[in-house]
Amino acid sequence: MNGADRLCDVLLANGVDICFANPGTSEMHFVAALDRKPAMRCVLGLFEGVVTGAADGYARMTRRPAATLLHTGPGLANGLANLHNARRARSPIINIVGDHASYHLQHDAPLTSDIEGLAAPMSDWVRRVESADAVGGAVADAYRAACSTPGVATLILPADSAWNPVEATLLAPVVLPPKPTLPMETIRSVAGAIREHRGRFGLVVGGDAALEIGTEWAGRIAAAYYGRVFADMLPARIARGRGRTPVKPIPYPIDLAIESLRDIDLLILVGVPEPVAFFAYPGKPTRLVREGCIVLTLGGCGDDLAAALEALADELGATKPTAPVDTTFPAASPPRGQLTGDTVSAILARQLPEGAILCNEGSITGRRFYEFSEQAPPHDFLSIRGGSIGFSIPVAVGAAIACPDRKVITYVSDGSGLYTLQGLWTQARENLDVLTVVLANRAYAILLAELRNLGVNEVGRNATRMMSLTDPAPDWVHLAQGLGVEAASAESCEAFSDILASALKRRGPFLIECLI
Amino acid sequence: MNGADRLCDVLLANGVDICFANPGTSEMHFVAALDRKPAMRCVLGLFEGVVTGAADGYARMTRRPAATLLHTGPGLANGLANLHNARRARSPIINIVGDHASYHLQHDAPLTSDIEGLAAPMSDWVRRVESADAVGGAVADAYRAACSTPGVATLILPADSAWNPVEATLLAPVVLPPKPTLPMETIRSVAGAIREHRGRFGLVVGGDAALEIGTEWAGRIAAAYYGRVFADMLPARIARGRGRTPVKPIPYPIDLAIESLRDIDLLILVGVPEPVAFFAYPGKPTRLVREGCIVLTLGGCGDDLAAALEALADELGATKPTAPVDTTFPAASPPRGQLTGDTVSAILARQLPEGAILCNEGSITGRRFYEFSEQAPPHDFLSIRGGSIGFSIPVAVGAAIACPDRKVITYVSDGSGLYTLQGLWTQARENLDVLTVVLANRAYAILLAELRNLGVNEVGRNATRMMSLTDPAPDWVHLAQGLGVEAASAESCEAFSDILASALKRRGPFLIECLI
Repeated sequence: MNGADRLCDVLLANGVDICFANPGTSEMHFVAALDRKPAMRCVLGLFEGVVTGAADGYARMTRRPAATLLHTGPGLANGLANLHNARRARSPIINIVGDHASYHLQHDAPLTSDIEGLAAPMSDWVRRVESADAVGGAVADAYRAACSTPGVATLILPADSAWNPVEATLLAPVVLPPKPTLPMETIRSVAGAIREHRGRFGLVVGGDAALEIGTEWAGRIAAAYYGRVFADMLPARIARGRGRTPVKPIPYPIDLAIESLRDIDLLILVGVPEPVAFFAYPGKPTRLVREGCIVLTLGGCGDDLAAALEALADELGATKPTAPVDTTFPAASPPRGQLTGDTVSAILARQLPEGAILCNEGSITGRRFYEFSEQAPPHDFLSIRGGSIGFSIPVAVGAAIACPDRKVITYVSDGSGLYTLQGLWTQARENLDVLTVVLANRAYAILLAELRNLGVNEVGRNATRMMSLTDPAPDWVHLAQGLGVEAASAESCEAFSDILASALKRRGPFLIECLI
Repeated sequence: MNGADRLCDVLLANGVDICFANPGTSEMHFVAALDRKPAMRCVLGLFEGVVTGAADGYARMTRRPAATLLHTGPGLANGLANLHNARRARSPIINIVGDHASYHLQHDAPLTSDIEGLAAPMSDWVRRVESADAVGGAVADAYRAACSTPGVATLILPADSAWNPVEATLLAPVVLPPKPTLPMETIRSVAGAIREHRGRFGLVVGGDAALEIGTEWAGRIAAAYYGRVFADMLPARIARGRGRTPVKPIPYPIDLAIESLRDIDLLILVGVPEPVAFFAYPGKPTRLVREGCIVLTLGGCGDDLAAALEALADELGATKPTAPVDTTFPAASPPRGQLTGDTVSAILARQLPEGAILCNEGSITGRRFYEFSEQAPPHDFLSIRGGSIGFSIPVAVGAAIACPDRKVITYVSDGSGLYTLQGLWTQARENLDVLTVVLANRAYAILLAELRNLGVNEVGRNATRMMSLTDPAPDWVHLAQGLGVEAASAESCEAFSDILASALKRRGPFLIECLI
């Protein structure tokens, strides 16, 4: 056996049995080793952004790492944008990057590059394997780093560390330390602040705190002390829908974000950093809380946040389950006529199946969908945590592999979808149960809105050509078919409702292009 | 006026009037400024790899820099793979990356990343603009660095440096120093070595030395002293075809590469580093020259290489023009029957129009095409200098914008083409005269070959699923149509010949999928 066999064996010994891959020549010994490990499921992405985004989606749903397999510096570079989202979402990933044999590097062959330098900005941990014998320990350390940060652990595997022989050995799985429990002092201090700011406080939940148990405890605290439960702008994952605590992500538009926190005197961070403006704007603040607002941290993303919220609720005597909201859903009659961003969102929310995983990549339309779907059946909502475009189609791949019995829905505008459309092919290849809804507005609509924010009302030729996707308009039905995914197009609410209803009944990948 | 206006004005004052762009919110003031500069042509790429690849193609053909416009760290990351090729090809590029306003960075908003860290591995020069007043000087320095290295100059533009006001001022273009002339001592020493190794020497030409004038002088020297003229493996650009010096790129497969240099006792590098194995293989050498071969450098890529070769030819008395090869081209009758990689290459070579710019992204088929087309009408041959996949479709965009009166032909296999297929949309948007020939072998064929090199003859499920592109096979006719480019498919030599002939007669983008 060789270093590559050892790598696979250590992954498998730790339950890492998915490898999202886009290999190259320097990884051929790794590929050959994978071929000897039928327990490892290898999923090919035709572009590296698909590979890393899929690993992110898988991690968000399982809370466990998958492995990736990328080819040298340029292959890693293609995967960095979605690693950025993964790192910001605190998704555990073992990101394996093949490199030239160590003795080859000094010759600066054409594909040589500074892989450590490229990896560092989007990784929480980076290590180069020094020899075949060091592979086992390095993979175990990468697993430990990925799980305990949690985050992106990048392991650089020189070809000779993969191909050189190693001795067979018994492998024991890594024992991860339990998540730290927060000291009662912190709990009591936060509880005291909440008592003082009854009616004027907010909890911002992220990480595990935004899942079902965490949000339930947060909801009980908020209900008992008249507070509010927020999520981060563009949250990694929220468990939501009928019967669950309504959680409001802080809005992306700066004015709405400030407005949403205007009457908050105490903001408690649970697994998230303090929310700040997504972008800077001339004359507008970066911090979103009002002057004088107290900001406290209950715990960070490595802590046991659900337990911390439970302890906080106990301390506050806020243990009464929140009353289910008595609503008939969907309330209104379905929208009719010409499709718009709003009507697509409303129809999608009305038909959302129980247990759906919604991968959202629309900052404007996604927010509207979020409003419409508050009382939809229970579901998970994933969004583009780091703001790096090309997120949703790949993340849906990983979510569908993580949760084969749940319907995954990608909600994406045409401009964003085009960055990593290659992910559709992997959905077809693996026959994943993913429905992609493309909002074809044929523009970088958010940029046009931002340009208007600058006071630019007359958009000239250069700006138009950088923000409009017409001339020619991409045709998503053709694109999907070209990648092996069946697709249909809708221009009216009625047509979209019908196509959506039948798409939700079938299994396997499908795409609907909504012409708005 | 503001910093962004100044940026555009300095670019335009230096003749940089093309901006390949994929902007985001932090670049809106730059976009608004571009809108006030009709002399700047803005070309949108729907993915950043298209933007940087196009800038590379433009630079290879004009030898001048275009500007790019990318959005923060993730946008840069998506463009890095093709910047790697550009840097390895010594293409001048002014690579502009927008970032958050400087005062916003400390808050670590979700899109924040270490842009300098990401840029450094694929740039020859990196600078962050410190203020609006510093924009003018920084852009001038970037221009100087891009042209004189030549290479990739990355300029990081914080949003506040773009939006803050600057005073109007008169702008003078940057005066570039002339390229250094090589000392006669070097020329004489190389000449002496050639005299000593008559019949057993090779010149390896790259950069300007591989263009028409450089190869002519190299050819005269080789003819007079019975030497050979090589190019780098995967050369950036070679001027070749009927009437020009035949230049042989050193083969990519390691055994052929070593074989090609077996009888060379003296290798003279003209604008290229010493050729080494593209990848390392167990038990095979990294250096390709035989033990004891003398390796001399005539000049580096920043030198005036055409003049150096002329001076060398003068010194050697090798001034006699090389006799045109007397061939009838094409020699054989056109191939018939089922298409193969070889027959596609042969047919394409036979029909190659004069002045064509061939963007090649096939290491195996590209080499065969190269052999078939040696006596084709004069043309330029561009290849994937850094080995970073997803090169050819974007590079064709830039080459076509640089040379609107020449036919650009992309020759790419389906696996490689899928990395950056979005470039087809830009070809449609700009109505570029680009013909894309996709060799649909439905596999990462080179990887299968590499796996067989390891002695793996039985390929199992995991390896197959990582190297085969069937199940489903991408359909390039649909993909091209989805991006606004007309397309057709061919399965036989006869069909391909006919479609190719009519595609070469029309102007504007077209794609032919060759099913082999």
